[in-house]
This record gives sequence, C-alpha cells and structure tokens, in this order.
Amino acid sequence: MTYCVGLKLDRGLVMAADTRTNAGVDNVASYKKLHIWEKPGERVFILLTAGNLAVTQAVINQLTEEAHHRHKKGAEPSLYSAPTMFHAARSVGRVLNQVRERQASAQPGLKAESFYASFILGGQIGKEEPRLFNVYAEGNFIEAGPDTPYFQIGEHKYGKPILDRVIDPQMRLGAAAKIVLLSFDSTLRSNLSVGMPIDMVLYNRDTLKIERQVRIEQNDPYFMTLSTGWSNALRTAAGELPEFEG
Amino acid sequence: MTYCVGLKLDRGLVMAADTRTNAGVDNVASYKKLHIWEKPGERVFILLTAGNLAVTQAVINQLTEEAHHRHKKGAEPSLYSAPTMFHAARSVGRVLNQVRERQASAQPGLKAESFYASFILGGQIGKEEPRLFNVYAEGNFIEAGPDTPYFQIGEHKYGKPILDRVIDPQMRLGAAAKIVLLSFDSTLRSNLSVGMPIDMVLYNRDTLKIERQVRIEQNDPYFMTLSTGWSNALRTAAGELPEFEG
Repeated sequence: MTYCVGLKLDRGLVMAADTRTNAGVDNVASYKKLHIWEKPGERVFILLTAGNLAVTQAVINQLTEEAHHRHKKGAEPSLYSAPTMFHAARSVGRVLNQVRERQASAQPGLKAESFYASFILGGQIGKEEPRLFNVYAEGNFIEAGPDTPYFQIGEHKYGKPILDRVIDPQMRLGAAAKIVLLSFDSTLRSNLSVGMPIDMVLYNRDTLKIERQVRIEQNDPYFMTLSTGWSNALRTAAGELPEFEG
Repeated sequence: MTYCVGLKLDRGLVMAADTRTNAGVDNVASYKKLHIWEKPGERVFILLTAGNLAVTQAVINQLTEEAHHRHKKGAEPSLYSAPTMFHAARSVGRVLNQVRERQASAQPGLKAESFYASFILGGQIGKEEPRLFNVYAEGNFIEAGPDTPYFQIGEHKYGKPILDRVIDPQMRLGAAAKIVLLSFDSTLRSNLSVGMPIDMVLYNRDTLKIERQVRIEQNDPYFMTLSTGWSNALRTAAGELPEFEG
C-alpha cells in the first residue's frame, strides 16, 4: 500500500509520499514514490505514485526518456515540451495508458486491475500558477481547485479528517507540511503497509526550482516531536470535553 | 454503508450504531442497527448489524422468534437458552449462515457477497463477565480481549485513530461513550453514507439490565458540543505544534 498527499496552497505546493512497497506481508521493501523533474527557472514537476510498482516505474522511466529527447514536430508533448500544466497532466495520462496497454497485452489472462496505478502531479510552468492534478488509473485526471485544495492517493482514509479540518489555502508551507506529517502519522499508526521514511517537497510558487526537499526517517526528531505532541494533545483535548451523562 | 462500534471495558460495555441505509445515493432511509434482547436479572444482549438489510433483518427476526420459543431438547441453543456468551455468539453465526443460505439458494445467479452481513454482539449472562464478539459474514467470530478491547464494523477507518489513541479499558462508561461519539463525528464528516441519528447503549456490568439507552439526533446539544469542541481543540492543538522548517 501507499499513502501520498499533494496540497495546492496560495504560496505553492506541499507534496509527500511514503516509501513502503509490499507484495504480501513477508516481502516488504522501500521504493521512492516521489519523483521530480525540473528545468530551473522554467518549469518544475513533482509526481507522486501509487499502485503496481512495475507500472509506476515504467511510467517514470518513459516520462524521463521522453523529456530528454528533443521534441519532434507533431509528437505528443513531453513534460519538458508541454506548454501548460494541463498538457503535462495529459502527458502523464497518455504514458500511463501506453504502459498499461503494453504490460496488459503481454498477459492477456490478467485483469486490468493487476496493472493499477494512479498519480498526483504538481508543478508550475513559466507564468502559469502552480497546479495540482490527480491522474486516475484510466489516464484521465481532475484538477484541485479552491473548494478541494488537496489530493490523496493510496490509503487515504485514516489521514483525511485532519486535512479536512485544518488545511487552509492561506497557510504557510511550513505549517501545511506539519499538517501533512500529522496526516501521515495517523496513517502509519493504523496501516502497517504504509511506512517510513517519508519523502516531502515544499515548493514555493514562482521560484521554478525545487529548493526544499527532505526525507524524514523513522527517528527524525521533528517527526517524533509531532507524533508525541499530537498524541498528547488529542488525549488532553478528548479528556477536557464533557463526559456523556445520558 | 454503516458504522458500528462496540467497546468492552472493565465497567461494562458501550455499543453504538448509526441508522443510515442506502441503496444508491438517491434511496436513503433510516433503520435501526442496534438491537437488544434482555431477561432482566438473567441476561442481556446488544447486537449491532452491518450489511444487506434483508439479511440482517431476517437474522434479527429469527433470533427473536427462536428466543421466545421454549427450548426443545437437542435443538441448537437460542439467545435465551444459551448457557454462555460463547454459545450466544455461535447462535448468531448459525442463524446468519441459515439466512444467507436460504436467501442465496433462492437467487443462484447472485454472488455470495450480495448477502453480506456482519455483527458485533455484546452482552452478559449470569455470573460470566460481559463479553464482546465480532461475528463475521462467514458465521464464525472472534472475541475482544485486553489487547484489543473494541470492534468496529462498516466504515471503520475514519473513526479508528481516536479509538486507538484514547480508549483505555479502565475508563468510566460515560468517558468511553464520549470517545465513541467523537469517533462517529469523524466518520460522519467524511462519509455521507453514515448518518445520524446514532443509537447507543451503555451497559454497566453485573446489572443484567439495559438501563442507559439513547438515540442521539442530528441537533442533540451534547453531540453538537462535542463536535464543535473537538474541531476547535484539533485546530488549536495542530496550531500549537512547531512548524516544519526543513
């Protein structure tokens, strides 16, 4: 399983992913699920991945190879030739469809769900504002707007209440990153198939450069402060509310 | 969908269920999912139900009819003739299997999942201590012990973190009921198919009588105090933790 969150805020983007991959409970490993492409000063992309690792890694590879090839006239845009974030999201969807079709046609006996993968794409191109997309397994996608400024993929339920209650598009990125990590903390406590370390990027709008990228390990002092502080705060808050007396 | 919780505490049981039933989003109704049988001074049972309403209602009806018939020698025990809670749980599982077999055999084209139902059974018989069981769709069951003093059925993920963090078997029933209602509040906010009112029973051990049974409506002042107080407390607590500065 996986847990990934992307937030679109007035000041930029906060994107984070866990790193646990498992095929059964006795085959557990760590893989990066947060990927970055950037041409500093021109465009940045952060892509979070969930689903079949053979599919997501093939998508990452194909996106990278296409990006580094010179754009041929008439060819579909790559991440580096896409004129807008909308075209970049289409490009992720197209590559996903191509990878799934290739892998599924080699295994006609398997169901389409075997090649399941989905993505959160955030980024900024030139003078466009930063944008955030949720790319579905079907290759189509939706964009975050002011009503719903965030997306989650993977094991999303445990960590949703804190996002719903606290995230506000006007937050500072550091404050939003704290809430994202609290959302991870709730998920990590409840689902063993989501695991540390956590990769996180804070992207400040209009910088067109990834400057704040961190990997948060199991024993990270800040994460431990948050986790313990949050547990204590919840217990105190719950204790202070009036008891049921019916 | 449904959300039900049963807690086994040193001082007794707290059991609660929502009341929403839906077949599609445009066919929504309220049905009781918390059912009680009692012979005051001798035995009490509280049963929470999730799944196909035609199955759960048939199970409730058959359990009730069996309980009110005189026990025939050699017959399987009913709720009222079961010597222990273990036998009562077996009786729920047996009736569930009978109902599913009857309904499924009338519709051989449908999959077994169409007749899905599961239950939480709590209660006390005579001098046994109060016990709590989770009866699976297969008719078998597990019992709550000191390591895991609670069960949830239905839409359980949103409301699990608060239970995991705060429930302690030594709590007073009124304090535990508060935590159960906070767990419902998180679930209600995130899943439209779980809805008010909430039915709740607080059973004080060794009373062998249901004395504290309530229905909490949408505008219940205590529930509104909890819901608002909890939102404010979470926001304050999240605000007071240190910002991420990486």
